Amino acid sequence: VNVVASRPGVPHRAARGRRIVFAPRFHGVESALQAPRSSSSSGHPLADDSVSAGLRRRAAEIDAAFAAIEPLLRRLSPRQFEDDFAARASAEIRAALGFDVPADHLTTTWSTPLDVKALYAHCVLATFCRLIERAFDRGLSASSDGENAEELIRRWGFHAIDITPCADGRLSGVVDYILRVPPAVVVSVKSHAGAMFDVEATLRQWEVVELERWRTSTPNAGTAPTRFLKIGVYHFSSVDPSHGGCAAHGSDANRAAGALLERLEQFEAAVKAIHGSEAATLLVGVDTDTDAIRVHVPDRAGRMAVARYIDNRDLFERTRNLPRETAKDEIRQVVADCAGVAADDAQTEGMRWLCGYLLKNNISQVAAVQAWHGGSYADGGHTERLIVVGDPVDAVQLRNLAFQAQMDTVEEAAGDLDIGIKILRELNVPRGLAIPILVHFQYDSRIPGARESVARRARRLKDAILARYASLAAQGVLHVHAVVRAGNESQLAAIESAEVFA
Amino acid sequence: VNVVASRPGVPHRAARGRRIVFAPRFHGVESALQAPRSSSSSGHPLADDSVSAGLRRRAAEIDAAFAAIEPLLRRLSPRQFEDDFAARASAEIRAALGFDVPADHLTTTWSTPLDVKALYAHCVLATFCRLIERAFDRGLSASSDGENAEELIRRWGFHAIDITPCADGRLSGVVDYILRVPPAVVVSVKSHAGAMFDVEATLRQWEVVELERWRTSTPNAGTAPTRFLKIGVYHFSSVDPSHGGCAAHGSDANRAAGALLERLEQFEAAVKAIHGSEAATLLVGVDTDTDAIRVHVPDRAGRMAVARYIDNRDLFERTRNLPRETAKDEIRQVVADCAGVAADDAQTEGMRWLCGYLLKNNISQVAAVQAWHGGSYADGGHTERLIVVGDPVDAVQLRNLAFQAQMDTVEEAAGDLDIGIKILRELNVPRGLAIPILVHFQYDSRIPGARESVARRARRLKDAILARYASLAAQGVLHVHAVVRAGNESQLAAIESAEVFA
Repeated sequence: VNVVASRPGVPHRAARGRRIVFAPRFHGVESALQAPRSSSSSGHPLADDSVSAGLRRRAAEIDAAFAAIEPLLRRLSPRQFEDDFAARASAEIRAALGFDVPADHLTTTWSTPLDVKALYAHCVLATFCRLIERAFDRGLSASSDGENAEELIRRWGFHAIDITPCADGRLSGVVDYILRVPPAVVVSVKSHAGAMFDVEATLRQWEVVELERWRTSTPNAGTAPTRFLKIGVYHFSSVDPSHGGCAAHGSDANRAAGALLERLEQFEAAVKAIHGSEAATLLVGVDTDTDAIRVHVPDRAGRMAVARYIDNRDLFERTRNLPRETAKDEIRQVVADCAGVAADDAQTEGMRWLCGYLLKNNISQVAAVQAWHGGSYADGGHTERLIVVGDPVDAVQLRNLAFQAQMDTVEEAAGDLDIGIKILRELNVPRGLAIPILVHFQYDSRIPGARESVARRARRLKDAILARYASLAAQGVLHVHAVVRAGNESQLAAIESAEVFA
Repeated sequence: VNVVASRPGVPHRAARGRRIVFAPRFHGVESALQAPRSSSSSGHPLADDSVSAGLRRRAAEIDAAFAAIEPLLRRLSPRQFEDDFAARASAEIRAALGFDVPADHLTTTWSTPLDVKALYAHCVLATFCRLIERAFDRGLSASSDGENAEELIRRWGFHAIDITPCADGRLSGVVDYILRVPPAVVVSVKSHAGAMFDVEATLRQWEVVELERWRTSTPNAGTAPTRFLKIGVYHFSSVDPSHGGCAAHGSDANRAAGALLERLEQFEAAVKAIHGSEAATLLVGVDTDTDAIRVHVPDRAGRMAVARYIDNRDLFERTRNLPRETAKDEIRQVVADCAGVAADDAQTEGMRWLCGYLLKNNISQVAAVQAWHGGSYADGGHTERLIVVGDPVDAVQLRNLAFQAQMDTVEEAAGDLDIGIKILRELNVPRGLAIPILVHFQYDSRIPGARESVARRARRLKDAILARYASLAAQGVLHVHAVVRAGNESQLAAIESAEVFA
C-alpha cells in the first residue's frame, strides 16, 4: 500500500486490498484542521470531546476533499487552450484530488472547449467514491463510558438497530455524529424522503436478522428475549420552522413525526401479527440547525406520541452545569417522567436506558456544534454535494454531504428522486454546475452471478434516471455514475469501463 | 351465499365471504362438458384418470367462461343503437357472463358508438377475476396412491417447493396439470420470461420459509434434515422445435435449459455460501405440444446436466403396456440410471423418489392430452387470453390462459412485459380486439397499511404500463385493470372505484 506522507490531523488508511493515493494538499481548509479542543473544552459534563475531536478531524478531511475541487477547476479552466493541457491538467488533478480523470474530459479544441460542468460532476463523484474507499475508522463510538457499546445495547435488550432517516442531506451524519451509535449494531440505514420506509421491506430485514439468530446464534440466540429496534428519524428546523424542515412533509414537524410514527406502529404491528413477536420502535426528531434530537420515549405499553418527547436542547441546558453523575441522574429522571413510569420500573428499563444513551450521545454532538459553529450551523439549509441512489452508503458520514434515497427503480421512488433533483438543481445549476448522481449497489460476492445482477440493476437505474430527466441531461447538467461494491468492502467498481475512479 | 342452480359437470362454490353469482348458461361448449372417460380410458397403467377428469371439468368451465364472451358481444354489437340498449346489454352480460359492466362501457350515441375493444377487454378481465373468485378446488392432487402427497414429499426430504416457470402462457397449468403437485406444499410460483428468476429474491423466499421452521416448526422443525426444493421449468416444442419454443431463449431448448440450470446452481450455491445450508434444485423441461416433461435427474453430487434427462414421452411409451407395479419399478430404474446410482442408493433416494413422483404425475397429464387432444395440442402456439403482472395468480390454472410475469415495476421487467405484449398484440389486434392486462397484487391483511401500500403499487404499475405503451393505449388497444387481494383469499378489489368487477 502506497500512501503519501501523512500530516497531523489527516490520518491515512488504505482501503482493503486496494492502492489508494491520498491527496497530499488541500486548499483553503487550514482553519478546519486546527487541533481539536481538549476534552473539557465543550463545557458540558457529559460530552465526550475526544470522540467529537475524532469526528471533527474526519469532517475536516471530507470537507477539504470537496473544497479542493472548485479552486483547482477555476485555475485550470482559463488554461484549457494551452499546449499539452490535458496531460498537465490530468497530473494536477491527480496530485491535488487523488484520482484520474478520463482523457476525454480534458481534451479540448478551439471549437469544443472544456465541458467544465461534466468535469466538475466527475470530480465530485470521484471524490465521494475516493472517500468511500478511504474506509474511515467508524469505531469512534464503539464504547460508551468505557464499556463496549454493542454489548451494552444488547444487554439492555436490543440485538439489532435499523435506522431510517429522511433522505435530506442534513441527516447524512445521523449514525456517527447525531446518534453516535456503533455501526456494529446497526444492521440497516436506509433513507427515504420523509423517512417513509416500506413496512414490508423492513419486515424482510427483521426476518433476515431473526433467521441469523435462530440458525447461528448471531449476535445472540433466537430464544434470547432481546428485540430488533427500528428507529425512524424525522427532522425540523428550530431557526426557520416553516421553511427549513422536511420538504416531504411541507416543513411541518408534527406532520413529519405523525406520518413516521404511523409507519413505526405499522411495522411493530406487522411483526406481532405475522410472527407473534415483539419488535421495538423509536421515533426521533432532529433539529437540523443544532443537531439536537427529540426522543419520543415510549410509555409503559410501548406507545409513543407526537407531542410527548424530550427535547435535547432543553436537557442540554438543564444538565450543563451539573456534576457528571448528577447530570446522568437527571437524564434518567427526565426519561422516566416522559415515559410516565417510576425510575425503577423494570418493564421499561431497557428502552429507557436506550433513550438516555441516545440523549447522552447527542449531548456530545450538540456541544460540538456549539463549539464549532457557535450554537447552530451557519448553513441551515441545503448544501448537499451529490445525490446517492440505490443501496445506502453510510461509510462516509457528514451533515449535508449527500441527498440519499434508497431505491431499485426510479419507478418506485420517483417522488424521492424528484425532491433530490430539485434541491441539487437549485444549488448547482444557477452556479453553472451540474448535478452529480451516484448510483450505488452492493452485492454479496459469495453469491455466484450476484455482481452481474447488480451491475444490470445499476445500469438500468442509471438509464431510468437519464430518461426521466432527459431535458436536464440534454442540457449537460445531469451526470450519473454507476458503481457496484462487494459486500461491505470499500472498493468500488465503476460500471462503465470508460470511467474508472481509480 | 346465493348461487344459481348448478348443472352436472359445472360445480359451484362460493368464494370466501363474498356473494358470487355464477353464469348459468354457456355457449358452444357442450362438447367440452361431456362426461369424463372412465378411469381406464387413458390406457396407461399409471395414469390417475379420476384426477384428470376433475381437471378436465375445471378446464371446460374456464374455457366455457371465456368462450361465452365473443358470441355475446357479436350479438350485442349490431343492436347498440336500439332503445334502452345499455340496460338490456347490461342484463344480458350479467346473465351470460356473471358480472356487471360499467354503464359507460355500454352507453352509445350516434356519434359515439360502442367501444367494443374496451368492452371485450373488460369482459376478459372480469371473467378472469370471476374465475379467481370462483376459488376452484385445488386439492385434486392432494393424495398420491392414497397417501397425503404433502406428507409424502416431506417424508422424502422436502419441506417446501418453489416453482419458477417461464412466463409463457403454455405453462399456465404447470402446477395442477403438468406437475400435479399439491398446492399445500408449494410456497411460491413466480413466472419470469425464460424462467430467469432472481437469485436474491429466491434466497429471501428460502429465508422466510426457514424462519417459519425455526420459530414455529411449520411445516417441520428447523433442525429437521429436509430441504427447500426449487424447481425451474423451461419449455420447448416437439412439433416445431425452432419456432414453438421459448421466445426468451430464441426457441432453443438447450439454451433455455442451460440458462435456467445456471440460475439454479447459483441459488444452491448462494444458500450454501450465505447460510451454510443445502437447498435442493431440479431442472424440468416441458414439451408444450404434449405436456410431457423432461426431468434432469441430479447425480450423486446433486449435479444436473442439460444433456442428461428423462424424457417422459419415452417413459410413457415404455411403461404403457406394463402391469402397474412393473411400470413403477421401471420408472425407479430409469431414474436411478439417469442419476448414475444403484436403485438402492440411500444418499439420493429422496430426490430420486421426487423425480419418479413427478414423472408418474406427468404420465397422467400426457395420457389426458392424448385422450382429449389426440396426442398433442391442436393449438401448439399462443392463445393466451390476457397478461397478468404483479404478484402471481395460480388459483386459475390452465394451459394458454395467461402470459404471466411477476414484477413490481415495469422498469425492472420491461423485457418480460414486451414479450407478453408482443404475443397478445399478434393474437388480438389483427382481430380488432384489445390486449387485456391484469395488474394484481396481494397483501397481508394482518399488516396495518398493507392494503394502501399495494394499492399504490398497483396504481403505479398500471400507470407505468400505460406510459411505456402509450401509443397502443392511445389506439385503444391496451386495457389495464388493477386489482388487489388480501392474502390467499379469492376476493379481489378493483383499485379504481369506477370499475368494480362484482
